[in-house]
Amino acid sequence: MLFQVEMDVKIPHGMDAAVLDDLKVRERVRAQDLQRTGVWRHLWRVVGQYRNTSIFDVGSAAELHDILMSLPLFPFMEIQVTALCRHPSSIHEDDR
Amino acid sequence: MLFQVEMDVKIPHGMDAAVLDDLKVRERVRAQDLQRTGVWRHLWRVVGQYRNTSIFDVGSAAELHDILMSLPLFPFMEIQVTALCRHPSSIHEDDR
Amino acid sequence: MLFQVEMDVKIPHGMDAAVLDDLKVRERVRAQDLQRTGVWRHLWRVVGQYRNTSIFDVGSAAELHDILMSLPLFPFMEIQVTALCRHPSSIHEDDR
Amino acid sequence: MLFQVEMDVKIPHGMDAAVLDDLKVRERVRAQDLQRTGVWRHLWRVVGQYRNTSIFDVGSAAELHDILMSLPLFPFMEIQVTALCRHPSSIHEDDR
Amino acid sequence: MLFQVEMDVKIPHGMDAAVLDDLKVRERVRAQDLQRTGVWRHLWRVVGQYRNTSIFDVGSAAELHDILMSLPLFPFMEIQVTALCRHPSSIHEDDR
Amino acid sequence: MLFQVEMDVKIPHGMDAAVLDDLKVRERVRAQDLQRTGVWRHLWRVVGQYRNTSIFDVGSAAELHDILMSLPLFPFMEIQVTALCRHPSSIHEDDR
Amino acid sequence: MLFQVEMDVKIPHGMDAAVLDDLKVRERVRAQDLQRTGVWRHLWRVVGQYRNTSIFDVGSAAELHDILMSLPLFPFMEIQVTALCRHPSSIHEDDR
Amino acid sequence: MLFQVEMDVKIPHGMDAAVLDDLKVRERVRAQDLQRTGVWRHLWRVVGQYRNTSIFDVGSAAELHDILMSLPLFPFMEIQVTALCRHPSSIHEDDR
Amino acid sequence: MLFQVEMDVKIPHGMDAAVLDDLKVRERVRAQDLQRTGVWRHLWRVVGQYRNTSIFDVGSAAELHDILMSLPLFPFMEIQVTALCRHPSSIHEDDR
Amino acid sequence: MLFQVEMDVKIPHGMDAAVLDDLKVRERVRAQDLQRTGVWRHLWRVVGQYRNTSIFDVGSAAELHDILMSLPLFPFMEIQVTALCRHPSSIHEDDR
Repeated sequence: MLFQVEMDVKIPHGMDAAVLDDLKVRERVRAQDLQRTGVWRHLWRVVGQYRNTSIFDVGSAAELHDILMSLPLFPFMEIQVTALCRHPSSIHEDDR
Repeated sequence: MLFQVEMDVKIPHGMDAAVLDDLKVRERVRAQDLQRTGVWRHLWRVVGQYRNTSIFDVGSAAELHDILMSLPLFPFMEIQVTALCRHPSSIHEDDR
Repeated sequence: MLFQVEMDVKIPHGMDAAVLDDLKVRERVRAQDLQRTGVWRHLWRVVGQYRNTSIFDVGSAAELHDILMSLPLFPFMEIQVTALCRHPSSIHEDDR
Repeated sequence: MLFQVEMDVKIPHGMDAAVLDDLKVRERVRAQDLQRTGVWRHLWRVVGQYRNTSIFDVGSAAELHDILMSLPLFPFMEIQVTALCRHPSSIHEDDR
Repeated sequence: MLFQVEMDVKIPHGMDAAVLDDLKVRERVRAQDLQRTGVWRHLWRVVGQYRNTSIFDVGSAAELHDILMSLPLFPFMEIQVTALCRHPSSIHEDDR
Repeated sequence: MLFQVEMDVKIPHGMDAAVLDDLKVRERVRAQDLQRTGVWRHLWRVVGQYRNTSIFDVGSAAELHDILMSLPLFPFMEIQVTALCRHPSSIHEDDR
Repeated sequence: MLFQVEMDVKIPHGMDAAVLDDLKVRERVRAQDLQRTGVWRHLWRVVGQYRNTSIFDVGSAAELHDILMSLPLFPFMEIQVTALCRHPSSIHEDDR
Repeated sequence: MLFQVEMDVKIPHGMDAAVLDDLKVRERVRAQDLQRTGVWRHLWRVVGQYRNTSIFDVGSAAELHDILMSLPLFPFMEIQVTALCRHPSSIHEDDR
Repeated sequence: MLFQVEMDVKIPHGMDAAVLDDLKVRERVRAQDLQRTGVWRHLWRVVGQYRNTSIFDVGSAAELHDILMSLPLFPFMEIQVTALCRHPSSIHEDDR
Repeated sequence: MLFQVEMDVKIPHGMDAAVLDDLKVRERVRAQDLQRTGVWRHLWRVVGQYRNTSIFDVGSAAELHDILMSLPLFPFMEIQVTALCRHPSSIHEDDR
């Protein structure tokens, strides 16, 4: 099942640089793991912003919630979730 | 170059059913042609709405504008365009 | 899987009363059928508005979309869909 | 009498972890007590957010206010309250 | 139980003047009846707008919904309902 | 002359508890004094929020401004002021 | 007493030109009469819009409401009213 | 050339009182100087808010920008600028 | 003096095609005349929308208003005007 | 390819003055370098705000993102990016 997830990262001013760097490294590792399993199907940067647009492919809404909660940067994100389904005009069987 | 395009279709009440059906058929044909060429890379329906979320892969912003203007349902759409680029944590070379 | 669905009904002024009554009767029949099957789990009226707040229990987001599209009043609704999951503090196993 | 209550929790960055954990434990105990009495009838997590959608069944609006004020996390919540009533198409006598 | 109700009247352009006058007369009669019974406790005009701010005193949210639905101008109103309760600093026992 | 005033109180996290308690006590005393003189005609709590809806009866807009500025919690409030007048359908001479 | 009034004129498409011209002529006459009496103290056009920003000097909010209701274009206006008072740094005794 | 300028002052909580008092004194002196030269033509307080509505009469938009930047409280203001011109129904030659 | 002007064109559904074509032709002629005189300095299409972003170079705000009012499509536009001035970091003397 | 970029600078209160001055100097140097290469084609100040409106001419959306990320004040900016293309009525070949 596909969900569009938009993540807007808001780092508080004055955050310790080492702490932030560590968070970013762990976020990257986690994001790449989730991409390899196919759960985090697409990940794009929105131009000019510390923000991404993503497509997740999960078995349930609950699974998506657990994944998002597990992201190291989760406490610093504003997240919008939109349920998607296959478009009747799509020619891609996989864009279900 | 990738752009996220969100199209919200607003059909005026009282529109002639035959005219509308013809528009929808032509929209579908056009959408499928553009998917086959790879320009309209992804097309998803937003659940519960007459609205889609799409990813376009075009050579320029001008090309995207001409394509959107050519859609039969364009006069009845509210469209949001967001420029995307490759995310540094993406593992997909093609999600450029 | 549970989704919160908010439906705001906007009837165009001047709509034929018999047509509207027929739509409402068919909407009611459909809503009650869907409640009996357990898919439309809860249905409440928002006080002072021609609007409801509902909870749907479906197998997938695609199933929810098909159900909402099948509602006789769908063309006159503005719909918001929110994916829900079980709250860690919930004591109701069924509020999954 | 039923009210839909949406609670959006905003924890200030830098809050002491032990203080926060204690708040969360007490919030959970209080939420479960209120569910057992039937006052907090439903409690769902909104996917991807530190936010819930709830249904309260109270004797009056004043009772609801006192309950919400008593929640340990109340000072960190943005709350929306919506008065509900039985929908004429509902088949559930209890969704009054 | 007290509710603040804000009613914003939007008359469609081109509505038949006699029909509108009849609606307004019936709205006035109904509003005054409801004030006499004490249910519609306060009714003020918002300066410069075809809009009122009102306080209703009802036995339940459902009663309020039925009353609002019964107003002749209801189909032309956008309504906001806000649940109120006694303020701890109020000196008026009746502003419950 | 009547004005509707909505006061939304936003206490900064980490404010000294003794300072806050003192502010609240003084706010309450001031609010009750103003109610006794008839200037602060109505004061209701909005359910689920640290917010009130009030009706003030003042000789001029300038008088209202001076009163609001004099409230101990003024620096922590977001305030909306709406000018009211007698509604032509009101039966209460005093709701001028 | 001074009020800032912002009037945004929305003429429905397809309105009869003669009717509209007549409305505009009468609006102008009324606006100039009210300026001569000093009630409509200032009247400016907002650049690029069919909209004005005005300052009214009236004895009460009720008087302002009656004046605005009497404007020939009132049914086609969206109006915002803001209560003003003398600024402590103003050097103009008359900007009360 | 006339511009409407709305200044909303947001003082951060915890600002040193002496620093703030000094800023306010200097703001007042500057505002009165600019009123005397005729550049800051009108200055009103919005009732219930730490906010003003002003009319500036300047030779150019650049001159207005330099003036606003020079205000001691500028770093604590949210400012909206609206270009005005003479209204065709105005009887005041000077409200150009 | 420079102003940024954003024009969003909203053509009513069902407008006569010949009337619309005539309006568009006249709009184009007028736009090109104004570009040749240097008043309409830049004109860009916003991708995916019937909307432009423009820069005007005029002697006064009043001149800008007269020009915008003279556009054949003005009655069908929503317009936003923003006053600009030279940026201190600009290297273009002409971007005044 | 042209993009409109709007940058709203929000400096946190209490930021060290020397740090801020250094940031501003480096921002200015970077902005002027980018203007000299032609990438940052236009740069205007919005009157009354710490905000600019700019036009960038880049080879791709990704190039624009890298440039914006490289600005010294980027962490303190809210940025809006709008894709532009040549307007059919433009007479400037270069406003592509």
